[in-house]
Amino acid sequence: MFSVTVRDHMMIAHSFRGEVFGRAQRLHGATYVVDATFRRAALDADGIVIDIGRAGEELHAVLAELSYRNLDDEAAFEGMNTSTEALARVVADRLADRVHAGTLGETARELDGLVVTLHESHIAWASYERPL
Amino acid sequence: MFSVTVRDHMMIAHSFRGEVFGRAQRLHGATYVVDATFRRAALDADGIVIDIGRAGEELHAVLAELSYRNLDDEAAFEGMNTSTEALARVVADRLADRVHAGTLGETARELDGLVVTLHESHIAWASYERPL
Amino acid sequence: MFSVTVRDHMMIAHSFRGEVFGRAQRLHGATYVVDATFRRAALDADGIVIDIGRAGEELHAVLAELSYRNLDDEAAFEGMNTSTEALARVVADRLADRVHAGTLGETARELDGLVVTLHESHIAWASYERPL
Amino acid sequence: MFSVTVRDHMMIAHSFRGEVFGRAQRLHGATYVVDATFRRAALDADGIVIDIGRAGEELHAVLAELSYRNLDDEAAFEGMNTSTEALARVVADRLADRVHAGTLGETARELDGLVVTLHESHIAWASYERPL
Amino acid sequence: MFSVTVRDHMMIAHSFRGEVFGRAQRLHGATYVVDATFRRAALDADGIVIDIGRAGEELHAVLAELSYRNLDDEAAFEGMNTSTEALARVVADRLADRVHAGTLGETARELDGLVVTLHESHIAWASYERPL
Amino acid sequence: MFSVTVRDHMMIAHSFRGEVFGRAQRLHGATYVVDATFRRAALDADGIVIDIGRAGEELHAVLAELSYRNLDDEAAFEGMNTSTEALARVVADRLADRVHAGTLGETARELDGLVVTLHESHIAWASYERPL
Repeated sequence: MFSVTVRDHMMIAHSFRGEVFGRAQRLHGATYVVDATFRRAALDADGIVIDIGRAGEELHAVLAELSYRNLDDEAAFEGMNTSTEALARVVADRLADRVHAGTLGETARELDGLVVTLHESHIAWASYERPL
Repeated sequence: MFSVTVRDHMMIAHSFRGEVFGRAQRLHGATYVVDATFRRAALDADGIVIDIGRAGEELHAVLAELSYRNLDDEAAFEGMNTSTEALARVVADRLADRVHAGTLGETARELDGLVVTLHESHIAWASYERPL
Repeated sequence: MFSVTVRDHMMIAHSFRGEVFGRAQRLHGATYVVDATFRRAALDADGIVIDIGRAGEELHAVLAELSYRNLDDEAAFEGMNTSTEALARVVADRLADRVHAGTLGETARELDGLVVTLHESHIAWASYERPL
Repeated sequence: MFSVTVRDHMMIAHSFRGEVFGRAQRLHGATYVVDATFRRAALDADGIVIDIGRAGEELHAVLAELSYRNLDDEAAFEGMNTSTEALARVVADRLADRVHAGTLGETARELDGLVVTLHESHIAWASYERPL
Repeated sequence: MFSVTVRDHMMIAHSFRGEVFGRAQRLHGATYVVDATFRRAALDADGIVIDIGRAGEELHAVLAELSYRNLDDEAAFEGMNTSTEALARVVADRLADRVHAGTLGETARELDGLVVTLHESHIAWASYERPL
Repeated sequence: MFSVTVRDHMMIAHSFRGEVFGRAQRLHGATYVVDATFRRAALDADGIVIDIGRAGEELHAVLAELSYRNLDDEAAFEGMNTSTEALARVVADRLADRVHAGTLGETARELDGLVVTLHESHIAWASYERPL
């Protein structure tokens, strides 16, 4: 199995609901350094998993929809906690939609899976992994 | 599949038995930067894999039992080489015990697995992965 | 010249005023991974620059006053942009106050200077350096 | 499952054929920071996955065959694009040959698998994973 | 003293002349992860050292003039070894030209100095520091 | 001013004397990831600060004298605490001796200074800087 990963980041504000979150129930924020990994059993005719330039652009586009925002005000996240793990899924699912729509190129439709990791600090990160 | 990882570290002395270890048969030591990854198929009612604060505290507690010690003197490791990979298992198993005992919270009992990685330097690390 | 550095982090929300900030004029947030460096010409009687344990605790205390907050609501920052470089100075000055107050130990009064670096992402960071 | 990883690097020149590569069709180069991960279900009699010293030496030997070269001139790569993902497979297959030849020690024949990751920059990397 | 740093990268081919370079006399290549640090004694009216967005764009523009090229073919480097330290100076001097030309904004003319660091691998890097 | 840095590591056991060290008064150990920075005002005739290959070898030789040892048993450190900052000086002074002895090459005698940084974990490091 082959994989290719690209890294970018986003900066957001949010707050959490639930006692388990302690001080993080207050409005605060985070930089998420985001790694998107694209998996594929065999390389395409060009000898690659995916056009890495396009992969970076699509990840950047997905993150631009979230970055520099207060996620508490976004309709898409109403009623959910935008935890690091939950946001990893949001980014992965939006990337998957773009793969299926052909935005990452025709051969990207042969990708087998996707992993998205959000690093919230030097001591904590979360991932979501899904098939394509 | 979701995962959440927390990082901490420990500093220990030890020596190895066996020719394969060369100079590391002498008493020496290591800083292990330790990553503990908790895996779960679905998020809990709060939208998380695990209470990340508690996860960090439990990892810290497990490492505190080992840190600032000469592992050659610890009864728990009598007759075994405390290699990086062997210590990764020790940390993972002790974390698993705490998960089963409910120390990481009731919903942590639904965790699917655990990976522990010990970084012994900038050019070498080892992992142990197990189900829960 | 000797130096010792300890690392911690804080997670905050804020917004900026001024066209130069573009989209960052909206309420957003950041994780700052914070490095505090203590400089000293000669080691103390224990052979150290500073008690590294206390240094970490004092840095943690300074960051706890800022973390999990919306800095736009803090009286201390009224009328100023809480840019990464400006916050580096805030952290450095508050650490310097603690050094002068003796919170970092008597011999810490012999420190020569302080550098604080705030990493806002994997591709951007800012520092403030001052004498003590 | 246990794993042990060692890191080294190589510096090469190459160019790509295919419109998808844009400016990378020109002769350019890369530093690849290379992580080789060895997987094994159980530890050997010494309590290790593999002799980490030998693992590092064998990885270094494999990379020395590629480093400080223009890959466009290497017969082994005629007709293929030496993409990061394709080179990850080359390194993994050459390490697997050495494992099978016994160069990494007799007990290394019990290894279950191998993952090789090539980091081409701070924002992009690729992996190839195979059984042994 | 304040500073702000932005990071980007370039990928180039080159070779060196001189016995001291050993195997690096052959055509090979490198990824340079490049950190550009801008220093300033006092913050500007917006509370910043420099417009970090513009700083990143200007660094990217300087690196784009070098990236995806064989530096042996560039007239600008005729008769010189494009060592990591020499390239750090090239990047710093070109950034300084842009600062003086006003490309980084009017207030950037008040910058005191510049440091450029090129990371050639995980175990080697070089810097060039200059006043402005 | 130019600089070149090379990285290596050592693994040692030791203990500290003095109440300030708390649990670190017990025999324990550390991995030190060591960065040695060589500074020079102008490049030599080959366009470099120092032969980076030799610099790496000399750093490795200095660290080999310390690594895989219990520093409490070394005559060289009798009566001193081998704190991270004190060891940074030991490494820097031993490298300086080698520079002065000509081991790093004739042109290395024109070096202006040296900085040695020892990383003891992901959250703490210490440096010693000296002229040459």
